[in-house]
Amino acid sequence: MAQRARNILFIMCDQLRWDYLSCAGHPTLRTPNIDALAARGVRFARAYCQSPICGSSRMSFYTGRYVQSHGAAWNNFPLKAGEMTLGDHLRPLGVRTALVGKTHMKADVDGMARLGIDPQSVIGVRVAECGFEPYERDDGLHGSGPDGKYDPRAPRYERYLNELGYAGDAPWDDWANAGEDDDGNLLSGWLLKHSRRPARVREEHSETPYMTRRAMRFIEDAGDAPWCLHLSYIKPHWPYIVPAPYHAMYDEKDVVPAVRSEAERADPHPIFREFMNHRVGKAFSRDEVREAVIPAYMGLIAQIDDQIGVLMRFLEGRGLMEDTMIVFTSDHGDYLGDHWLGEKDLFHDASVRIPLIVVDPLPQADATRGTVSDALVESIDLAPTFVEFCGGDPIPHRLEGRALQALLHHREPQQWRRYAISEYDYSVSPTARVLGVRPMDARMFMVADERWKYVHAEGFRPMLFDLEKDPQELADLGADPAFAGERARLLDALNLWARRQSQRTALSEEQILGMRGRSLRRGILLGFWDEAELPDELVHEKWRGARRALEPR
Amino acid sequence: MAQRARNILFIMCDQLRWDYLSCAGHPTLRTPNIDALAARGVRFARAYCQSPICGSSRMSFYTGRYVQSHGAAWNNFPLKAGEMTLGDHLRPLGVRTALVGKTHMKADVDGMARLGIDPQSVIGVRVAECGFEPYERDDGLHGSGPDGKYDPRAPRYERYLNELGYAGDAPWDDWANAGEDDDGNLLSGWLLKHSRRPARVREEHSETPYMTRRAMRFIEDAGDAPWCLHLSYIKPHWPYIVPAPYHAMYDEKDVVPAVRSEAERADPHPIFREFMNHRVGKAFSRDEVREAVIPAYMGLIAQIDDQIGVLMRFLEGRGLMEDTMIVFTSDHGDYLGDHWLGEKDLFHDASVRIPLIVVDPLPQADATRGTVSDALVESIDLAPTFVEFCGGDPIPHRLEGRALQALLHHREPQQWRRYAISEYDYSVSPTARVLGVRPMDARMFMVADERWKYVHAEGFRPMLFDLEKDPQELADLGADPAFAGERARLLDALNLWARRQSQRTALSEEQILGMRGRSLRRGILLGFWDEAELPDELVHEKWRGARRALEPR
Repeated sequence: MAQRARNILFIMCDQLRWDYLSCAGHPTLRTPNIDALAARGVRFARAYCQSPICGSSRMSFYTGRYVQSHGAAWNNFPLKAGEMTLGDHLRPLGVRTALVGKTHMKADVDGMARLGIDPQSVIGVRVAECGFEPYERDDGLHGSGPDGKYDPRAPRYERYLNELGYAGDAPWDDWANAGEDDDGNLLSGWLLKHSRRPARVREEHSETPYMTRRAMRFIEDAGDAPWCLHLSYIKPHWPYIVPAPYHAMYDEKDVVPAVRSEAERADPHPIFREFMNHRVGKAFSRDEVREAVIPAYMGLIAQIDDQIGVLMRFLEGRGLMEDTMIVFTSDHGDYLGDHWLGEKDLFHDASVRIPLIVVDPLPQADATRGTVSDALVESIDLAPTFVEFCGGDPIPHRLEGRALQALLHHREPQQWRRYAISEYDYSVSPTARVLGVRPMDARMFMVADERWKYVHAEGFRPMLFDLEKDPQELADLGADPAFAGERARLLDALNLWARRQSQRTALSEEQILGMRGRSLRRGILLGFWDEAELPDELVHEKWRGARRALEPR
Repeated sequence: MAQRARNILFIMCDQLRWDYLSCAGHPTLRTPNIDALAARGVRFARAYCQSPICGSSRMSFYTGRYVQSHGAAWNNFPLKAGEMTLGDHLRPLGVRTALVGKTHMKADVDGMARLGIDPQSVIGVRVAECGFEPYERDDGLHGSGPDGKYDPRAPRYERYLNELGYAGDAPWDDWANAGEDDDGNLLSGWLLKHSRRPARVREEHSETPYMTRRAMRFIEDAGDAPWCLHLSYIKPHWPYIVPAPYHAMYDEKDVVPAVRSEAERADPHPIFREFMNHRVGKAFSRDEVREAVIPAYMGLIAQIDDQIGVLMRFLEGRGLMEDTMIVFTSDHGDYLGDHWLGEKDLFHDASVRIPLIVVDPLPQADATRGTVSDALVESIDLAPTFVEFCGGDPIPHRLEGRALQALLHHREPQQWRRYAISEYDYSVSPTARVLGVRPMDARMFMVADERWKYVHAEGFRPMLFDLEKDPQELADLGADPAFAGERARLLDALNLWARRQSQRTALSEEQILGMRGRSLRRGILLGFWDEAELPDELVHEKWRGARRALEPR
């Protein structure tokens, strides 16, 4: 029986916290469709992004490599030409690898020019788009300021809005991400006070349903050939505003109290202190901000959940459920005021932990359907998971994660990682300037094991949390002498990881093993005194005279 | 006054020990021309290669990056397409960057195909040739065995030999690297016993003078435009055979006793032990082998020295001395029986320490002419030295070494490295197979400071030498509890190095600093509650209605 086409639907939200799903325990937010995915697959409850910021997190997802390995360490840092991506691994397996939505990929324009890669060629477009065929590329933020637009590209979505009658040259900003007051004044969704307003578009015209329809159009167009579609929503990333009826679906009563303590603000780690001083951290430390934003954030997630339902019914209708791996995840979280912070960047769970649900349709995965795994999972695990699902051989010399099939196909995996790593480059942040840290040194590493979370900040003392005794991560033990042993152990783990082989990507282990002993039979003769010491097969005809001369007469 | 053209003559020998020069203290070997370079420049007496084996050492020289950073970790491991090289850094400065001789570069054929780089194009040839314009590419080893030739390329040198009447399809092997006995039997230079025979070519037809003439031809062809020429001799690398009169210039009396002790063989480090068990280690532990080989090795060096003289007179004759930086070095050393070893691979000075003489013609370098520097120098220091010499800005995000001008232009440099690093990947070696070490783990790192040399072997105990008390490196203190503190300190240095930022090559520090605070003025508004909190210049016209509505009536 011919193998059926194998597809992967790789769904990512932006800035969706791991705990803002009903299946993850949120007390009031209802996400029945995403829960249904969890019921059909495995929810990985201890999954970490490789970097709690959009750009570098995504580059790690898409290369299957740590940030220290690929170097695209923050937003808009180019991914250097030559780095291999999901597309490079899946396309040779016959899998069309395409994108609808956001990647935050910044092309290495200089590198492409240096290598003579024509940006208009098929290869050039893929290199510039992080290995994806850009069915629709839209990084989701289309605001502007005195220095111009944040994103120079003109998204198809804005033409779509214009065609529907949302007029002007900035419909994303003015309609999809703004409300209005009773006098008709435009109220920008960028401004937190306006978060509870309905966005000025019909629900079906807003970004999430639009991208969902684009994804369905791709799947229709793709026909019978296997595909991997990265459907990458911008929401619930700010601007925190959502159209009716989602804007009113939740209110202050649904706002979970912030996880923070006064003790955190007394003598904090210097980097933590500086991030608390950012405008957004101070804003989210105000209750009125949380009460305005979080219901909108929840509404955006509810809308996503509804669209997941639409998508799943579409897949079912086309008979694709049995052949399609479905992944639902996020690039990082959102502090939403926890720990006196907003945004992401640092390593508390609210920021670095990500939702991750994987539905593997194969029978081998029946063993774990509907279960929750507490294994330490890293976002780079998806790349080898996809390669294995599509029938490829493991490529550990290129992909640094572990295929999740070990956890999906077995309730008790034999061997799994003991430490999870994440990284953050704060060289662009005002924090680096204030603390006088050079771009080369503005780096932090997280090492988490089953119980402890350790944060190494080059040039500063570390941070340490006991996740068993202090699951809310309120007590930083990084300077407490009593925990020197734990810190030393976790630093050892970080250093072992840092010493890893990550760049020897041009040769597989098999190829290296195949090189052993080869040069001898190609004329490289080391340590032989004379012809008598040579094995017969290595004695050239031309040397036989000399060899005979050695024989006793 | 127009700036005169700036040239670089980057001369490399293969397998030339740091101490086989008269200026380095060899008791009988005479190298007056190389000594003359040292008298005109600086001899760096504590210079280390980045990896004691041809391929990876050279890839580090040519990229200016550590082995762990570029990943071409051993001979014939491809340098991945995209890695930047000397040519990429110097060509934009108007400097033609060319090669005569050996690089040991293995093109990343798969990577080039994946990126659509045509191997026949100008860019493609450069990418395949490690950034050099291959005026003459010849990796110097043209033997063969039952499985065919070691090097599939047909070198111009063999056509040259044929044209001169050295007949046959293997003239390099049969004439330039073989002797003969009284009966006319061919005696291969591969076989150590025959090392003292004269090679069967006229001296002027042998490899070193041939390459020297090719270098001079390049310089003639290059005209007035600035050039960087990598003149890369294969000798004194084996086959250890040299034409008359050099074969008889030295004899047993010139053989320096081996640096080795019985204590080394009693309970050695497991990796050391296995390398001692290699055929070549056992061979060089026999006095008859050393007495045959070393005089030939010395003769090869004497011939190189004579050719350096020819080259320098040629440069003087063309008036190029004032404008040309001259570098003389080697990719690694040769144990020649020291420590019961042959070849290179491990980290004793005989192997990892390299000769390095730099003549900087600029007046600023007058301060140090004729001096010897004991600063810890790494071979990757040459790349930034060349960039600075050619007028380029520093590129520390790409080049990991330090420009030597700090040592060339100042007798007392302000700041220099405290630790030198070198690396060795033994995954192809029988040692890995015997010890059961997987290719991913078969790695060693050396950390040397002013006094100590520490060798970290992943999965094994370390090695440690006190270079002050034990300059001959005979007493491995790696398991001695009394030295745990030193080992810990040096391991810390290794780990700090391992945590470095090496892959963030697409953006300079200046570019990163220029990114700070930019997104605010491009519409990324984080943490603003309402229009009143926004600075005036960030309030779009369309939001002014809402702003006025906030004003008290």
